[in-house]
Amino acid sequence: MTSSGYPLLNDPDILRDITSLSDRYERALGENELQELDKLFYDGPETVRYGVGENLYGFDEIKAFRRNRTGGSPPREVLRRVITVIGRDVATVDLEFRRIGSERIGRQSQTWFRTPEGWKIIAAHVSLMGTGS
Amino acid sequence: MTSSGYPLLNDPDILRDITSLSDRYERALGENELQELDKLFYDGPETVRYGVGENLYGFDEIKAFRRNRTGGSPPREVLRRVITVIGRDVATVDLEFRRIGSERIGRQSQTWFRTPEGWKIIAAHVSLMGTGS
Repeated sequence: MTSSGYPLLNDPDILRDITSLSDRYERALGENELQELDKLFYDGPETVRYGVGENLYGFDEIKAFRRNRTGGSPPREVLRRVITVIGRDVATVDLEFRRIGSERIGRQSQTWFRTPEGWKIIAAHVSLMGTGS
Repeated sequence: MTSSGYPLLNDPDILRDITSLSDRYERALGENELQELDKLFYDGPETVRYGVGENLYGFDEIKAFRRNRTGGSPPREVLRRVITVIGRDVATVDLEFRRIGSERIGRQSQTWFRTPEGWKIIAAHVSLMGTGS
């Protein structure tokens, strides 16, 4: 926070923490570690995850989706990542990825916030880039 | 904030403010009011906007994109919207839409934060739902 009460961007210590969490998320996704992925999402009805082919509302739908997806998320490499910390309790992570063997560019956006149980994702959006706007 | 220092979700007064801002954004998008759309985005290099067919980094790229897009965003109706306020200074807006004349479902995610110039979008992601995950 500034003295005027508005959130400052990109506190360096928090930026480091969120960078580690984003790395941890990518690892868990790559290895389809369901418990770890669950742990990084906020366990509440407010949590939203728009995936490439599905719109999920609430932690329970997200958890169930992961368990019904055979083999997990296709392997991918991260091409570019931007992390922005807003104040002390919220951060956004936006990244571009390419799935191995595919030419199409994917994008993943997440909003994280601080809870008594650690930082959690409360909103996520994953898509493959289309043509046109 | 809670007394323990963690952000509370969905303060009702702020929820009302963000709901109005989201309505205002939809109107501006529908009428391709470029100055109004610019005004609702944070004017900084941190702002990210993933569109259906483009990945834009920084306010300047977003502003230029809007000016190069003939006719603006295709008309659409909002099917479902979830707004979540995180603490007092940040909110997420996630919605599903359908473009008029199309069967495909689109999704829009935004992260807003409080600045001295009002609430601004610092991260946005728009996509059309694909098949498969």
